[in-house]
Amino acid sequence: MKIYIHTKFQESIYQQFKNALEPAYEVIIGEGIINEELKAKFLTCDICYGNVPLDWLNASSQLKWLQLNSTGLDPYQNLKEYSYHLTNLKGFFGQSVAETTLAGILAIYRRIDELTRLQTKNEWIGTPIRETLYLLNKKKVLILGSGTIGMKIKQLLSGFECDTTVLNSKTIGQLAEFLPTTDILIATLPETKETIGLINKTYLEMLKPSALFVNVGRGSAVDENALIEILQNNKILGAVLDVTEIEPLPTESPLWNMPNVLLTQHSSGGWAEESADKVVFFINNLRLFEEGKELINNVDLVKGY
Amino acid sequence: MKIYIHTKFQESIYQQFKNALEPAYEVIIGEGIINEELKAKFLTCDICYGNVPLDWLNASSQLKWLQLNSTGLDPYQNLKEYSYHLTNLKGFFGQSVAETTLAGILAIYRRIDELTRLQTKNEWIGTPIRETLYLLNKKKVLILGSGTIGMKIKQLLSGFECDTTVLNSKTIGQLAEFLPTTDILIATLPETKETIGLINKTYLEMLKPSALFVNVGRGSAVDENALIEILQNNKILGAVLDVTEIEPLPTESPLWNMPNVLLTQHSSGGWAEESADKVVFFINNLRLFEEGKELINNVDLVKGY
Repeated sequence: MKIYIHTKFQESIYQQFKNALEPAYEVIIGEGIINEELKAKFLTCDICYGNVPLDWLNASSQLKWLQLNSTGLDPYQNLKEYSYHLTNLKGFFGQSVAETTLAGILAIYRRIDELTRLQTKNEWIGTPIRETLYLLNKKKVLILGSGTIGMKIKQLLSGFECDTTVLNSKTIGQLAEFLPTTDILIATLPETKETIGLINKTYLEMLKPSALFVNVGRGSAVDENALIEILQNNKILGAVLDVTEIEPLPTESPLWNMPNVLLTQHSSGGWAEESADKVVFFINNLRLFEEGKELINNVDLVKGY
Repeated sequence: MKIYIHTKFQESIYQQFKNALEPAYEVIIGEGIINEELKAKFLTCDICYGNVPLDWLNASSQLKWLQLNSTGLDPYQNLKEYSYHLTNLKGFFGQSVAETTLAGILAIYRRIDELTRLQTKNEWIGTPIRETLYLLNKKKVLILGSGTIGMKIKQLLSGFECDTTVLNSKTIGQLAEFLPTTDILIATLPETKETIGLINKTYLEMLKPSALFVNVGRGSAVDENALIEILQNNKILGAVLDVTEIEPLPTESPLWNMPNVLLTQHSSGGWAEESADKVVFFINNLRLFEEGKELINNVDLVKGY
């Protein structure tokens, strides 16, 4: 059988794939390059790791399993009928995203961002900054999304004795009830018909002046213009944004220069061993595939995750 | 009875003291000013809140209870014989210091400091930073000091599934055994004869290249020159320093400009309601004093904490 690796990795990661797969499988490394020659090679393959173009998929009659290199399904919602297995990396980034979430919240509350800016200027402020710090202890936290990320965030918060509520697609209707008393609103939502624009101006205006907004899901879940206006007018304490409507964030976005905003640049899903751990995940799934068992992270394109 | 408030607070905090104490007590506000007139007033008082000069204390025959505005006892180790109650703020700062500890560790692991510097420059780095991030999950953590701060840090780490060991004055002899496998070394030590210079060059050199050092106790616990050398040579991953040998940190200290150092400027003990909560603590202790019960945080000057 032939396995096509479409994702761009470091050389050592391709070697890790080959060490695990050869000689049982023939491994073709595409490096994420898109051209007719590589498309032709892909069309001879049985298994693929990585997010190949839609037209490659629609042209394949050989493919038995596609393992995506992402949690997000865009643009594969537009797949024509397909008969192969389709799996994604759902849950793979949970711990990592949850840790950046905590890092971001604590950075705002304990003013790590401001202390870093002061350090850049060799400027000792000392005691006066203490009055501007907050405690996470016992805060009311509202998490939108009950997937791996949301549940991991809840777990990491446990030692802080927070009062944490998780809303999922069935309970999201209660959002307006919770917002006025929420200290920290954390969006971990996937992009679906229901989540696009969900966090609108009306909802954002229900938050307290001391509230913090965190988005580690998808930028499309928030009305970004409304959020910017609310932050500019200090109607909430601040925001930690791992995602924005457009990425990279355009240079002219006012979010760059807001002292109450921390931009984590879609880094939350990353860690030093991320790529190596993806190979391990794929190989584990391949063993299930070989045994004809159900694969981990089979995608439901109707639900959208 | 007369109560002398020596600590410099905002006007609203003095009002909070007065609302709770008058007219049962006469309240004299010293605002931390040191002169003969205020010393004479202090000498007529039965109770004092705040860290008055040693010579005021040694001159007083009226004082029945001194509530310090600090956890640290310096310079009161040098008190001559005294017959009044002496209490400090031990434990008061535990949650706050523990939260800055987590904030600092996560800032280094998730590169919040670097992301803040990039934001200052409107610079999108995105994906490449992901390979430089670390996870706190399952790390081996060694906490020096089993007081409120150390135990609170252990509690906050619980959701991260870390392998946490706490060494106290009885078990500190095992330090060398633990250091070579430690991912994060956290010093929460008070300043005593035994802790000054404890974390010396030999111990620091036992740490792994990926190790992180955190000091939220006292700057005197560490050989700062040895630490600087080790950080300059990247022999460890980095350091989060809330305390240093000299504070404010001198402008010429190389610690200011090290990209692997985060300086939190002795802010860890602070939060917006810190002063208001100190009044609450004092009033609670005063009720015990009135009832002749044992006060919270009686100090043992022999032990040094």
